[in-house]
Amino acid sequence: MRNKSCATFGATRSLNIAEVDPRPLAVSLGDPAGIGPEVVAKAWALRRKHGLPPFVALGDPASVSAVWAGPVVSVDTPAAALTVFDRALPVLPAARAGALRPGDPSMNGARCALDALEAATGLVLQGAARALVTAPVSKSQLYRVGFTQPGQTEYVADRCGVARDNAVMMLAGPSLRVVPMTTHVALADVPRLLTIDLILAKARATVRGLQRLFAIERPRLAFAGLNPHAGENGDMGREEIDVVEPALERLRAEGIECAGPLAADTMFHPRARARYDAALCCYHDQALLPLKTIHFDEGVNVTLGLPIVRTSPDHGTAFAIAGQDRAEPGATVAAIAMAGAAADRLARHRAA
Amino acid sequence: MRNKSCATFGATRSLNIAEVDPRPLAVSLGDPAGIGPEVVAKAWALRRKHGLPPFVALGDPASVSAVWAGPVVSVDTPAAALTVFDRALPVLPAARAGALRPGDPSMNGARCALDALEAATGLVLQGAARALVTAPVSKSQLYRVGFTQPGQTEYVADRCGVARDNAVMMLAGPSLRVVPMTTHVALADVPRLLTIDLILAKARATVRGLQRLFAIERPRLAFAGLNPHAGENGDMGREEIDVVEPALERLRAEGIECAGPLAADTMFHPRARARYDAALCCYHDQALLPLKTIHFDEGVNVTLGLPIVRTSPDHGTAFAIAGQDRAEPGATVAAIAMAGAAADRLARHRAA
Repeated sequence: MRNKSCATFGATRSLNIAEVDPRPLAVSLGDPAGIGPEVVAKAWALRRKHGLPPFVALGDPASVSAVWAGPVVSVDTPAAALTVFDRALPVLPAARAGALRPGDPSMNGARCALDALEAATGLVLQGAARALVTAPVSKSQLYRVGFTQPGQTEYVADRCGVARDNAVMMLAGPSLRVVPMTTHVALADVPRLLTIDLILAKARATVRGLQRLFAIERPRLAFAGLNPHAGENGDMGREEIDVVEPALERLRAEGIECAGPLAADTMFHPRARARYDAALCCYHDQALLPLKTIHFDEGVNVTLGLPIVRTSPDHGTAFAIAGQDRAEPGATVAAIAMAGAAADRLARHRAA
Repeated sequence: MRNKSCATFGATRSLNIAEVDPRPLAVSLGDPAGIGPEVVAKAWALRRKHGLPPFVALGDPASVSAVWAGPVVSVDTPAAALTVFDRALPVLPAARAGALRPGDPSMNGARCALDALEAATGLVLQGAARALVTAPVSKSQLYRVGFTQPGQTEYVADRCGVARDNAVMMLAGPSLRVVPMTTHVALADVPRLLTIDLILAKARATVRGLQRLFAIERPRLAFAGLNPHAGENGDMGREEIDVVEPALERLRAEGIECAGPLAADTMFHPRARARYDAALCCYHDQALLPLKTIHFDEGVNVTLGLPIVRTSPDHGTAFAIAGQDRAEPGATVAAIAMAGAAADRLARHRAA
């Protein structure tokens, strides 16, 4: 039964969905001085090759034209975007970047990125767009213009009325999905932050997300241990015994399929990856290292636990290469494709 | 100039070396109840396919015959092994396993493994064998029979008169070499154990090892940071600023090519790996996770800093699958091939 909906809807899915839900996705262009405008434009250029669903970009159309020679059309509404999507990248001018140079971050650029994010999120919450895709922003620039959230994920969660801790970051590539249970904290703080409650919250949100957005009816979770060899029965750290195992017992009692705690080094080779639908990891690099080693140019950040679908390419603003036509659009293509597919599945899940 | 010796000696190397150094390698069979005897025998069966140098196995010939139907011949000397190597696996009966079942660890098996290790190491130190390859042992079983070393690496270092801390474990696969700077310790202890002196010692030993055993004249080292994004300028942990960077400055002053501290998650994809000869990592899983994700069945553990060459397949005794003809010999084949090639390079390095 796993992924039945994928198999059933496979070849004709776009057509079916276009009939029932003609709305575009909303794609925020991110920081206009970063690679966001370039990768979104390049993703549009690859729309036919990858069968991407229609989308409307939000931001300053000039930030796209500055780095890309293809056709850009300003539109007033998401509906108008659908009529031009086949021949040009539709941009809803939700923000003005002002005078800026690609690769040169500024407060103007940060304000533009924030306006685009607000507008794109708003379109999805209003129901005018099907799902949200966010190009990268510079957090340090955003903080300078008064942004009070740690990042875009928390901003979107707040707008959705979801507590930050319940918005779970999953990184997904073609053969691996990972959830870092702690994220941007010093490694020395991880043993203290890894609690039974944290594991329970992340695991439950992951299960719901895989069911709703990925149509995996009975998700198989694999949990990494914190220590080498998962602690080897307490010889090298006791977190597996004191924290991870008790959490897994509770999850199993809830009927959730859990493997682990596993030795982190031997759970990401191809045969091991085939045994689970998502790996829940104790810290940032334990999750991101295998994902980026295997799927460097195609990793998608998908937020679980929200009432809407939100994805993002798993890379930063890359100011150092902005405006040089060197940015790879693979992750943005994957983020748009995943957002469209997830929105379809979520709609079917709700209709079921 | 990098790897010039490889290119120069490529096709005709075996022949050249056979003329100048006809000695076999010494391969200890490891725990007789583990998969050691099986993978060594299977490696012998693949000797022509992979152009393996001649080797003599040390242990109980019966432990091989119990799990493998191919030809096994007991020999008295390494020289005798050379005469039979083409038609049978030569075993120097250095140990007696007694009655034992594959998959069933015992004190008898541990004594046999220790005897084999002692004999194989002795052969290499006496000069009767060219290099040492060790099949896996069970540490917990060895401790029960009075073994006082943490593992085989430290045992061999002691026999060589090398301080344990100067014997550096490198894990090597076809496209990645990693050195864990801390190894089998709880993750919570890593920040305290990661010192400037430790980094200096590991880096210097790695450089010497790459020069002597891999003929890399000017090794390029890449250092992983401890924290996510390598700490992001101290925002998420200060170990990069307080420990790693000062160590790297000293190493650069010594003329060693050092990159880093790098974000660990983005340093192991194929384009990133091409930029260095070895990655020095802060903790066990940071090194072993990418290596085993990429090269699960072909990882070799090579000890740097010894006066002899010692390699080992990068897996354990795997008691659970012993005696079932299911063990993959890839890592053992790679360990034997690497030991032979490294011994050749070490001899040339000394002669130069």
